[in-house]
Amino acid sequence: MSHIKGIGASAGIAVAKAFVMETPSFDIPTNKIEDVAAEKARFQAAIAQSKTELEEIRQITLRELGEDKAEIFSAHLLIVEDPEIVSQVNDKIESEHMNAAKALDEVAQMMVMIFESMDNEYMRERAADVRDVTKRVMAHILGVTFMTPASISEEVIIIAEDLTPSDTAQLNRKYVKGFATNIGGRTSHSAIMSRSLEIPAVVGTKVALEEIKNGDLVVIDGTEGDVFVNPSEELVNEYNEKRAAFEAYKEELKQLVNEESITADGHKVKLAANIGTPNDLEGVLKNGADAIGLYRTEFLYMDSETFPTEEEQYTAYKAVIEGMDGKQVVIRTLDIGGDKELSYLDLPKEMNPFLGYRAIRLCLEETDLFRTQLRALLRASAHGDLAIMFPMIATLEEFRAAKAILLEEEAKLKTEGIAVGNYETGMMVEIPSTAVMAKQFAKEVDFFSVGTNDLIQYTMAADRMNEKVSYLYQPFNPAILNLLHNVITEAHKAGKWVGMCGEMAGEELAIPILLGLGLDEFSMSASSVLRARSLVKRLTKSETEAIVNDVLNMDTAEEVVNFLSEKFDIKK
Amino acid sequence: MSHIKGIGASAGIAVAKAFVMETPSFDIPTNKIEDVAAEKARFQAAIAQSKTELEEIRQITLRELGEDKAEIFSAHLLIVEDPEIVSQVNDKIESEHMNAAKALDEVAQMMVMIFESMDNEYMRERAADVRDVTKRVMAHILGVTFMTPASISEEVIIIAEDLTPSDTAQLNRKYVKGFATNIGGRTSHSAIMSRSLEIPAVVGTKVALEEIKNGDLVVIDGTEGDVFVNPSEELVNEYNEKRAAFEAYKEELKQLVNEESITADGHKVKLAANIGTPNDLEGVLKNGADAIGLYRTEFLYMDSETFPTEEEQYTAYKAVIEGMDGKQVVIRTLDIGGDKELSYLDLPKEMNPFLGYRAIRLCLEETDLFRTQLRALLRASAHGDLAIMFPMIATLEEFRAAKAILLEEEAKLKTEGIAVGNYETGMMVEIPSTAVMAKQFAKEVDFFSVGTNDLIQYTMAADRMNEKVSYLYQPFNPAILNLLHNVITEAHKAGKWVGMCGEMAGEELAIPILLGLGLDEFSMSASSVLRARSLVKRLTKSETEAIVNDVLNMDTAEEVVNFLSEKFDIKK
Repeated sequence: MSHIKGIGASAGIAVAKAFVMETPSFDIPTNKIEDVAAEKARFQAAIAQSKTELEEIRQITLRELGEDKAEIFSAHLLIVEDPEIVSQVNDKIESEHMNAAKALDEVAQMMVMIFESMDNEYMRERAADVRDVTKRVMAHILGVTFMTPASISEEVIIIAEDLTPSDTAQLNRKYVKGFATNIGGRTSHSAIMSRSLEIPAVVGTKVALEEIKNGDLVVIDGTEGDVFVNPSEELVNEYNEKRAAFEAYKEELKQLVNEESITADGHKVKLAANIGTPNDLEGVLKNGADAIGLYRTEFLYMDSETFPTEEEQYTAYKAVIEGMDGKQVVIRTLDIGGDKELSYLDLPKEMNPFLGYRAIRLCLEETDLFRTQLRALLRASAHGDLAIMFPMIATLEEFRAAKAILLEEEAKLKTEGIAVGNYETGMMVEIPSTAVMAKQFAKEVDFFSVGTNDLIQYTMAADRMNEKVSYLYQPFNPAILNLLHNVITEAHKAGKWVGMCGEMAGEELAIPILLGLGLDEFSMSASSVLRARSLVKRLTKSETEAIVNDVLNMDTAEEVVNFLSEKFDIKK
Repeated sequence: MSHIKGIGASAGIAVAKAFVMETPSFDIPTNKIEDVAAEKARFQAAIAQSKTELEEIRQITLRELGEDKAEIFSAHLLIVEDPEIVSQVNDKIESEHMNAAKALDEVAQMMVMIFESMDNEYMRERAADVRDVTKRVMAHILGVTFMTPASISEEVIIIAEDLTPSDTAQLNRKYVKGFATNIGGRTSHSAIMSRSLEIPAVVGTKVALEEIKNGDLVVIDGTEGDVFVNPSEELVNEYNEKRAAFEAYKEELKQLVNEESITADGHKVKLAANIGTPNDLEGVLKNGADAIGLYRTEFLYMDSETFPTEEEQYTAYKAVIEGMDGKQVVIRTLDIGGDKELSYLDLPKEMNPFLGYRAIRLCLEETDLFRTQLRALLRASAHGDLAIMFPMIATLEEFRAAKAILLEEEAKLKTEGIAVGNYETGMMVEIPSTAVMAKQFAKEVDFFSVGTNDLIQYTMAADRMNEKVSYLYQPFNPAILNLLHNVITEAHKAGKWVGMCGEMAGEELAIPILLGLGLDEFSMSASSVLRARSLVKRLTKSETEAIVNDVLNMDTAEEVVNFLSEKFDIKK
């Protein structure tokens, strides 16, 4: 038996035979070709075939995992037909009589190198996408079939260097019980997908692919990041028990679907879900979320070739609002710019995009775009409980300007005889200035929703995508908790409610202190709602309130984490 | 008479004849050459000549304006010998038999295009540098003499498209009474230089070069941004009176050199100066600053081909400390990274450099570099009143780590028998987390110095170099003032002092509210100290304190600015 340590990427335990998925290594021929036209046609056919496959995978992903995850294959479809790649390959075939495989290999390597040299996570992911897509096209040029998870028809644990997005999308939960990869971290594509699929996974093991052979019996613990190869019967039994306990816990959680989110001493909160598209609604309902605390509207825009029309938006918003059947839906207006681009909107290149022209800053300038979205939202408000939320507000002037445009459109709709329902108007608190000035803002908004990802980033002046400074991304830094305290205190004084829609809201270790601070709504990924509800039901509001003052006066994030972990017996 | 409106770049009034400095337009020959060696030699000679001139200009600038300003010509000297440019030009001469002028033109245009396409101010400035340098080399290749301010020998006001750094460095204050340019803003090179030189200047007029002819009588008002062409006698008289009043005011200020910085009701503050090199000391003493509130040590590193040695640093620090003759000198440890690069230190390219790996984050990793600087500082502390300040502190762990290294080096020096004086240890407050957590930090530091430029940038999540969002750079935003209030209040409770070394500290409109908030030290450019002292002497602490609560509860920066402007009768 051997033991390999990795990073737990998706909770749960699996015991099964290993299915070792080698990365295909292609033998790229170096011969020159004579018939240029035939070679170009061969390349074109490989592209067409890849395109068909990618469209299929996209459809499967859309159905199984929602539009948010399917979006990656929309990107792949753009890459497979990228005019730059296609024309460069054709050029090489034409002018150098290079064979198609060699030409594609050279062009792809160049593209990957350019993206990788940019040395930031976002661009490195683009490199991974180009690799994934060209591998597929290359296989078709060479007539090679490479292993894909789609071909698996018995219960296995996949062992691989890494799983590409397209691999992960094809995982069949019936057969694939888990996977372990050599590379990747908790936020890599494959890790995120494994959590969506609820498949136990261990990533970043460095050596799994080398140390595990096809057919080896493997145990993986996706909570702890352990992989055992050819374990003793004793260990298998032990882990089968652990798995049973984990399954029982999941069953127990399912019992909470229709229960209230209420503490042991009777304090009610809302445990809400974040979504990206109407397709995510199913998961929200299945997990019994009390509301949708954040509907990100970017995907409507990013998944499109042009600005979505008022009608298209109205249809999407209405579907979500009606689907929630009277429960509140908080819809955030367009948060584009920064690292999120639209192919059809030409934005300036910026030195510091996270401190740049994005979200409400852009919407207040491109008002046509903004007004179309607001009209769609106002019309959708007639169908249920809607809250409209503006992102990246820094000053009161911006909030007032956005609200004024909203009221103008409402007046216009009413003149046109179109129904508008009651709705709330609020804003994200994700820029430090708004957290500091919560008192002034609270007079004018209906609610706040704290976006911790950005708030932490700006408060600590550290780009969390940048590995060199990601240690400064500290949700439990007392500075962050003091800002939250100010936001919630001032909002409550003015009779307004406060939600949180950043990652922190779903963290078990954060929930007790957030409850103590008085947070009203916790919005997280739908799959975390029941776990959070189970925790909330065990806590009392009074015990969490009792520690607030101590925590606010602590010196460091580490001190806070240790204290909370011990006090509430929650794993760090 | 015509009136042209521009941007006031440097206060003061000038009345003189126009000296129109046309941008030279070169006639670039297109002929091919035969003798490759001769053409390359010609190019080399032009470079050598340019280099000699640039070295001269650098010396003049160093003498007249200090090392900070001379640094630009160190950069130009690097460009003129840039191996990439030189080899590309030689290549074109060799392989295409292109003439040297045409070759340089093509290479320079490509370089400029690359820099300009980057679309951020820092890179656009690099483009301007390349243009400035190649213009000089081109003139030598073509044997053209172009107008430079050095050739002026009567009293004039220069009218130009823009003044390049080398133009500005050659301005002779005896003859050049002022200048007006078509392009530029308050922070462009020429504007900054004009303030250093105390020459009245109006920039960004758009049309001055077109509307003004050589010899026209011109009046410029660098405070208001007005340019009058061929004015009436009446207007000339009026402006001569204004000029006399301005000169009298400057004389009056000079009387304050040896006075205390004390309010009308007896509250003493320190009005300190920011410096970049020991050469700036002269200006500090001439303007009677009470201390040096910020000595930026970056120039020591940026002006060098390799890391400055402990001895070189010690010499520089000691010169400044001794030069201040017992007055305190706050020296900031290396703040490199972000937009400030070192040619000999390979830093990762980052997606958001302002949220990246810089300053103390870098020093705590590159500890050799950091220890060398700390040893130099500790040795210098024996020669006067030194305060050591760490930049970009975000967490208490970072401050503790930096201080621990400092104490280790102090212990080592003492073991080695080397003298170390008394000194204070403090930190910049420029990251929101530290402003929020001032209470915790105040227990461990000797002092704070607020860096408003960065603090505002992070608190508002807006890169002030980015024109699209620079409207969010709001020193008077109540969020900023509330953070300052917290920092000063908590520091004073712990018996620590608070300085400010960002641009805000020197702004007349800011001084009353900063005084009211209790700021102890205002550190600004040396040339602003006397004006600030004059204002402080007119104010009373009690009247400034009386308005603090009202201001902290205002809604917007605009409201604060209007209120302060009216209350203290200070121009916005």
